[in-house]
This record gives sequence, C-alpha cells and structure tokens, in this order.
Amino acid sequence: MFVLGIDPGLSRCGYGVVEKTGRQNVARAVGVLRTPHSAPVHERLGELQLEFRQLIVEFSPDVVAIERVFFQSNASTAIGVAQAAGLAMAEAANAGCDVVEYTPNQVKEAVAGWGAASKEQIQVMVQSLLKLSEPPKPADAADALAVALCHLTYAPLRDKLKKATR
Amino acid sequence: MFVLGIDPGLSRCGYGVVEKTGRQNVARAVGVLRTPHSAPVHERLGELQLEFRQLIVEFSPDVVAIERVFFQSNASTAIGVAQAAGLAMAEAANAGCDVVEYTPNQVKEAVAGWGAASKEQIQVMVQSLLKLSEPPKPADAADALAVALCHLTYAPLRDKLKKATR
Repeated sequence: MFVLGIDPGLSRCGYGVVEKTGRQNVARAVGVLRTPHSAPVHERLGELQLEFRQLIVEFSPDVVAIERVFFQSNASTAIGVAQAAGLAMAEAANAGCDVVEYTPNQVKEAVAGWGAASKEQIQVMVQSLLKLSEPPKPADAADALAVALCHLTYAPLRDKLKKATR
Repeated sequence: MFVLGIDPGLSRCGYGVVEKTGRQNVARAVGVLRTPHSAPVHERLGELQLEFRQLIVEFSPDVVAIERVFFQSNASTAIGVAQAAGLAMAEAANAGCDVVEYTPNQVKEAVAGWGAASKEQIQVMVQSLLKLSEPPKPADAADALAVALCHLTYAPLRDKLKKATR
C-alpha cells in the first residue's frame, strides 16, 4: 500500500510517499513543492495543482493523507494553506484515491507519542521509524512523511475497530 | 470578451458568464453549483473542480473574476470558501485565463455605487444592468454576475490609467 502524505502550504508544501510492505514502512519519495512569493496567487495554485497531479500519477497512492487546516493567527497564510489542501483533496478524489485528514496533534501523537512534540523531535522520529540514514529535511518534508506514517498507524486500528463492533 | 464571475462556496458556488459586445453587457449563463453537505469534503471539492473545468471549456472566458475570500466569523465555512476559490483559480490559470479577484465592497460599489448595498439591491441592479426580465436568483447567482460586471467596469479604467501613466 502506498500513502502520499501532504503537509499543505502555498509557499512550501511538503510531500512524502511511504510504502507499507508487510511490517515495513519504506519511504519512497520526499520533498517540498515551492511556489514563488512574487508570482500571482492563481499561477501558484495552478502550478501546485499540476505538481499534485504528477505526484499522484507517478506513485498511484492508495491513500492521500493530509494535515488538516486550522485557522491560524496569520489569516492570509491560512487561506493559502487551505487552498493548497483543497487542491490536493480534489486531485486525489478525482484520481480515485481515498483521502483522509489528520490534525497536527494526531500526527504528532502517532509518530512521537505526544501531541506537543517539536519539529526537531518529529524529524528524529520519522528518521527512526523509516530507518533513514539522516533526519528528513526540511521540516515540511519530515511532516509530510509523518502524516503518511500517521495514517499507517491509525488505519489498521480503525479497520479492527470496525470489524470488532460490526 | 467573455468574463466568468465566481461567488465561491463549497455548498453553493455562484457562477455567471457575461459577454461584452460593443457597449452591451449580455448575460450568457448563470447558476449555482451545489455539493451535498452529507458527502466527504474531498469528494465535494473533486466535484467542484470538474464543474469549474466544464464551465471554462464551455464558455472559454478571457477572464475569470472571483470574489476575494475574507476570514469570516465561521471558520469552517471560510475554509470551504477559500478552497472553492482556490480550485477555480487553479483551473482558470491552467486553462490560460486571466484571473482577477475583487473584494465584496468593490463588487457592490461597481454595480450599485456603494459598498453597503444589500443582497436584494445587488439583485435589482444586476437585473437592470443586464436588462434581464427578472432579478437573477438565488443571491449567489446574482453575486456571480455582479463580480463579472465589476470586472467589466474596472478593467477599462485600469487599462486607461496604465496608458495615461506610461
């Protein structure tokens, strides 16, 4: 199973692809999509849309897991984050992927055991869980892998719960 | 020149196509795209994306004019509005259309002469400016036509200003 994790953003949007093979979770791709501050917003959104589409074609993820958008102190940043997340969700839905959103707290709990873990702690835990030679950088890329790992942690529990309470 | 006006929203997204032929502005299409509250957000966004794409293919607008998103009291509504606007902008950019955003105040000033005009007043003014037999309904549809008219009001002034100050 392939999971594409997304840490949404307009200027910097982290992505990470994790494959679950048996009991192993293996990082298949990680990076950050960037769009230039100097370009008009619609052009930046258009670029992001095409890059999401390309990632989905390249990795055919079964699930796209996205960090849920919250309203932050900086309203204009929050709009960009919401729009990037929306584009990823629409592309994933129209490509036939499952889409699941996780709150930042759920992601931190799933990979570090507590919801107040720092960016650096998440990087170290993602490195350890995926047996990487070094912590994934930048933080947005590590966060995207963490979102994918979060789904791989919670999805089997939810499936089990569903069966147990059927 | 064809202008596609968008009053963005996730549950109800108004659209209106206005063609400028000589001195006349003529409404070519108007309506509301709706997605069901009961469906998962990513499916609703996926649907909206395809509907924006279809509108752009059908009318080949030169410009897509969009009402600018502001942070409202209801945070979860604002996220849906931002995401709908983002999808429209990305589709328009990748179809090669110009994209322009207008604030609600700019739209009201352009069609009614003042920024505090009510929904009903906007409907009446849109009816009058486009010589429609009755006020366009619902309000979201009238607002979308108003956004298109707003662009057709301001764009020639901006062009003139650009030439005058060159």
